[in-house]
Amino acid sequence: MAKNITSQQKDYSQWYLDVIREAKLAEHSPVRGCMVIRPTGYAIWENMKAELDRMFKETGHENAYFPLFIPKSFLSREAEHVEGFAKECAVVTHSRLRSTDNGGVEVDPTSKLEEELIVRPTSETIIWDTYRDWVQSYRELPILINQWANVVRWEMRTRLFLRTMEFLWQEGHTAHATESEAREETEKMLEVYRTFAEDFMAMPVITGVKTASERFAGAIDTYCIEAMMQDGKALQAGTSHFLGQNFAKAFNVTFQDADNQVKYVWATSWGVSTRLIGGLIMTHSDDDGLVLPPKLAPTQVVIVPIWKNEDERTQVISYIDSFNRELRNAGIRVKLDMRENYKPGWKFAQYEVEGVPLRIAVGPRDATNKKLEVARRDTKTKEIIDVETVLETVQNLLVDIQTNLYQTALKRRESLTSIAQSYDEFKELLDSKGGFVYAHWDGTPETETQIKEETKATIRCIPLDNPHKTAGKCMVTGNPSEQMVLFARSY
Amino acid sequence: MAKNITSQQKDYSQWYLDVIREAKLAEHSPVRGCMVIRPTGYAIWENMKAELDRMFKETGHENAYFPLFIPKSFLSREAEHVEGFAKECAVVTHSRLRSTDNGGVEVDPTSKLEEELIVRPTSETIIWDTYRDWVQSYRELPILINQWANVVRWEMRTRLFLRTMEFLWQEGHTAHATESEAREETEKMLEVYRTFAEDFMAMPVITGVKTASERFAGAIDTYCIEAMMQDGKALQAGTSHFLGQNFAKAFNVTFQDADNQVKYVWATSWGVSTRLIGGLIMTHSDDDGLVLPPKLAPTQVVIVPIWKNEDERTQVISYIDSFNRELRNAGIRVKLDMRENYKPGWKFAQYEVEGVPLRIAVGPRDATNKKLEVARRDTKTKEIIDVETVLETVQNLLVDIQTNLYQTALKRRESLTSIAQSYDEFKELLDSKGGFVYAHWDGTPETETQIKEETKATIRCIPLDNPHKTAGKCMVTGNPSEQMVLFARSY
Repeated sequence: MAKNITSQQKDYSQWYLDVIREAKLAEHSPVRGCMVIRPTGYAIWENMKAELDRMFKETGHENAYFPLFIPKSFLSREAEHVEGFAKECAVVTHSRLRSTDNGGVEVDPTSKLEEELIVRPTSETIIWDTYRDWVQSYRELPILINQWANVVRWEMRTRLFLRTMEFLWQEGHTAHATESEAREETEKMLEVYRTFAEDFMAMPVITGVKTASERFAGAIDTYCIEAMMQDGKALQAGTSHFLGQNFAKAFNVTFQDADNQVKYVWATSWGVSTRLIGGLIMTHSDDDGLVLPPKLAPTQVVIVPIWKNEDERTQVISYIDSFNRELRNAGIRVKLDMRENYKPGWKFAQYEVEGVPLRIAVGPRDATNKKLEVARRDTKTKEIIDVETVLETVQNLLVDIQTNLYQTALKRRESLTSIAQSYDEFKELLDSKGGFVYAHWDGTPETETQIKEETKATIRCIPLDNPHKTAGKCMVTGNPSEQMVLFARSY
Repeated sequence: MAKNITSQQKDYSQWYLDVIREAKLAEHSPVRGCMVIRPTGYAIWENMKAELDRMFKETGHENAYFPLFIPKSFLSREAEHVEGFAKECAVVTHSRLRSTDNGGVEVDPTSKLEEELIVRPTSETIIWDTYRDWVQSYRELPILINQWANVVRWEMRTRLFLRTMEFLWQEGHTAHATESEAREETEKMLEVYRTFAEDFMAMPVITGVKTASERFAGAIDTYCIEAMMQDGKALQAGTSHFLGQNFAKAFNVTFQDADNQVKYVWATSWGVSTRLIGGLIMTHSDDDGLVLPPKLAPTQVVIVPIWKNEDERTQVISYIDSFNRELRNAGIRVKLDMRENYKPGWKFAQYEVEGVPLRIAVGPRDATNKKLEVARRDTKTKEIIDVETVLETVQNLLVDIQTNLYQTALKRRESLTSIAQSYDEFKELLDSKGGFVYAHWDGTPETETQIKEETKATIRCIPLDNPHKTAGKCMVTGNPSEQMVLFARSY
């Protein structure tokens, strides 16, 4: 166990914060609830962005940028939307400071705004107000736009990456001529998120539909990907909303269809955020620090040279040159750590904490024998390989680590997934084992609330490919249930 | 001249806005002074970001992210800084809205913040407050960090891209152990900006130092790149600041040096913004719309097929396939416009307005003859070429357009640059010809202010490679002057 990192078993929450601190991913800022994303953490976000952006563009979307501020009156246009966001927002009321006698500054009361501005908690309102002028005819549809932006929600209880007052995200906002096309888009983007989570983050997810009480404020249907963290808790990792015509009606966005009828436009929105970094950490990392899937690791391979004198140094460097270039040319993200004021052992420990998937150590004897030592971060295993095979070995190991991380997470989820036939069994399972629990529910918000209040577990989703899609009776009320739904305690 | 675009000669300001609207780059938002950056405009920004980001990383910088909000008290820590930014900032005072009886929302007075938060106008204060904890010893220096972010300055007179209340930018913030290293960094990043402006934007710039009155609030020296727009006005396109120890002292950021002395850290900051898009438009575009340098054009080549019937359509598409892939595989950004509900002539006009550097038109006769027509946006010239030479021709033309745009802008600047030997000549030159005027100035802010008030011209910079570095007498006061400085009216 790395020093300065509390073990998962002892205190999972503290372990999470310790890993973030020791791997230098992020830290709290002097502004309550806001975080500073440090270079290593931001580099992970850049890799996530690059892959997601590519997937968005491959599915026909373009990026654009809408204002940070939303006029207060816009929020009230969609009744449920304002209900969902008005209680936690940053309100700009003035536009100027003035000096005070003691050398400080104070708000200049003469700069009070006529209408307050809200720092966007999400951009449906400002975007649909804009779309009104963009859409006249069915020929201008669909509009397939994504935005990379910062948003602010005035959360009281924050946790780095998982829930912060300001966070970075992408929000897709699309406009369609028909309901079916909008529904198709909603599901397509959910599938993009699933693919990204599983193939890049190595984080298995359940796709499903949220219950009415967990829906996005203003949506008809909210789809989600739900992941399981190592402590058995669920993490909502991304959402895709079918918004129906709610925002089109609120902002009067209509179009003339091919049949010459004037109709309201159909909408979707979908987003993932820096919360994914929290999910990534809590899916793979261990008591020694961060563990990163190779596809998202800023550094995939670190090379640590070992030498005692100048002759050895020259020999080792020249040897490393011979394969370092080969790895880089193959597109592998390699870092060579030549720093002289840190010892190899210190470097080993540091890269372990930082989660670099592969470490190559090379000393003078390796140079002579044309060998090198390759160590995996995930399994902590090492092997000595011939330098001629380095590229192939590294490529295979990176694939293997990616697969192994996914399989390990999947097995964990399977072992922590249960079925409850009764409410007693349900409660017992949550307390003894945790994890995901499938159970029958009568479909009413009242029962859902009762379960939440009594057990702290929520319905994570009604899974799309539900393995327990057989009718039964609600575990609480005994009323009919069409299928089991997925419960868990969650972040 | 494109319909809907006012000619430059008639009204340059209106021409600028017309080009932005017709090329669908951006538009005003319902929030005063904020803009919506539309997909085409944002794609240009993405290309700019990609190149700049690569250049920053090649010079050893990493990206990070700091909070959007700055505690009010932070601004007052550096005396000049608060003076520069307090008068134009968005102030967050509350964290909640509540419903009103008439179905609207109002600010909830019980949510008033203890300390107001300022939406960052620039991030020196929050970043230097963070650096304090990151730096203990000289071993942790330098810190070379860049941030891509949105910032807000409460401008009263706004103009799309050039001056908006919210804009997108990058801000580099570096920390160094010595003054010389920080000064070197300041100049290095200025050189990165110069290279980017000239090699990618095809926009020649003068590098120089700002006078005291034009310095960044809190800087010891502000370096800048100054470009000339087609109407002869100057545009400050990027700045790089040597901040000395001002922010280190304000936020108490010290380090233990190799000599065991505790010292204040030396700082730089540097930034360019979406203002560059305004500069790009005003450097190259014409009365027919946008003109884009190939290196930054989202679409470099558009292929417009022409057919009259299904047979011709099949023939033309198959023919286009044969070279489209070749162009794409070579990394050229090609768009094939297969839309059937728009005529070729309409498409030609649209891509001209949107500034696509090269247009390839292909009809059935071209397919038979293995020819195609290539039209340049910059010179409006067309040529018929053999399909076998398409890749080479397109590559050469793209290079040629890039060079031509730069040379044209450079010649314009040279023809609009003058030397004034007297104040009368200076005023006459500004009114008759405009452009850049070199003249002697006595180095005092009083004379600078007098010139600004009387002529609306400002000192753009004291050029680094000054072609007029000979001593003389101030054109206004007759007092000694070491060298001529660069004047212009500006945006």
